[in-house]
Amino acid sequence: MQISGAADLFQHHASLRSGSSNQYAETGAGARACAPARTYCRRMRAQDLAEDFPVVTIDSDALAAARLLAEHRLPGIVVTDKSGKPCAVLPASQVVRFIVPRYVQDDPSLAGVLNESMADRAADRLGGKTVREVLPEKLDKLPAAHADDTIVEVAAQMARLHLPLIAVVKDGALLGVITASRLLAAALTH
Amino acid sequence: MQISGAADLFQHHASLRSGSSNQYAETGAGARACAPARTYCRRMRAQDLAEDFPVVTIDSDALAAARLLAEHRLPGIVVTDKSGKPCAVLPASQVVRFIVPRYVQDDPSLAGVLNESMADRAADRLGGKTVREVLPEKLDKLPAAHADDTIVEVAAQMARLHLPLIAVVKDGALLGVITASRLLAAALTH
Repeated sequence: MQISGAADLFQHHASLRSGSSNQYAETGAGARACAPARTYCRRMRAQDLAEDFPVVTIDSDALAAARLLAEHRLPGIVVTDKSGKPCAVLPASQVVRFIVPRYVQDDPSLAGVLNESMADRAADRLGGKTVREVLPEKLDKLPAAHADDTIVEVAAQMARLHLPLIAVVKDGALLGVITASRLLAAALTH
Repeated sequence: MQISGAADLFQHHASLRSGSSNQYAETGAGARACAPARTYCRRMRAQDLAEDFPVVTIDSDALAAARLLAEHRLPGIVVTDKSGKPCAVLPASQVVRFIVPRYVQDDPSLAGVLNESMADRAADRLGGKTVREVLPEKLDKLPAAHADDTIVEVAAQMARLHLPLIAVVKDGALLGVITASRLLAAALTH
């Protein structure tokens, strides 16, 4: 997945695997070719489903990160540290939180009584801030799939954590990302 | 958004508004035209952001619903009753749950010990079932935005409930759907 623009801000994760040719090639994933075509490969693992995906570093501009997600209609973004090690997964529903004033997050009933000029400053609220500054105060342990997890293991974790995407790691390094729709497509292909 | 195929199974929500011409026209939304271009319209409400979106009825085929989501990379689907009244919002992360055997949902550690032939039957698991049969047993009250909710109200609700999309209702009827990325795009447009 090639994301144009904002190249100075965002790292585009380069797949560690290349040149693979298989039924998922159109999505840019590095799945191993396998047959038969009517059921998904019995040996398919998380690493075979992991796709290239735009990631943001934790010190990126928060407004640019939100725009990246909005413009490309992404289900979420993976946040990495400076070394490229994934440290958070931000679903789109949580990026949306960036535009909600803190006091409304604490008491949603206040949203209705915001005057319009205050509501209008949603974009300004992110200006000059980094992703680190707008992340939830308490970050859960990075929800990640291991490279050799099965489809059902990934699905169970995704469902339990209500995540639209999950990072796939191997030895602490990011292999790629699996989105919920990608997982479904793989599981239901026949 | 025109979804081809499966027309017998899925209702494509017809917008109640038509002919509008504005900055969001390319997404099929019925937002009112408003200026200036550098900030989003101060009077923008949920009904202005609501987009046409594929919905499934609660008695639709569950496998076809999952395929619809996978093929079109949707962030989720809205489930309606026979009369078209929305009754549930299913994020993609919860549709993924459909392919996880019940006993693994109850005890995720069992996913790792599934033998491969059991894991392979994920697609078969949905065969012949309806959406109603695979919905979570306890459905929360439909998380919906009201037509006149502000962007910040919708964002606060979306973030609080961790939803990638939200139904917009007026007098109990579905006006359309707002996705998280759509909301961000509207809030950050300038």
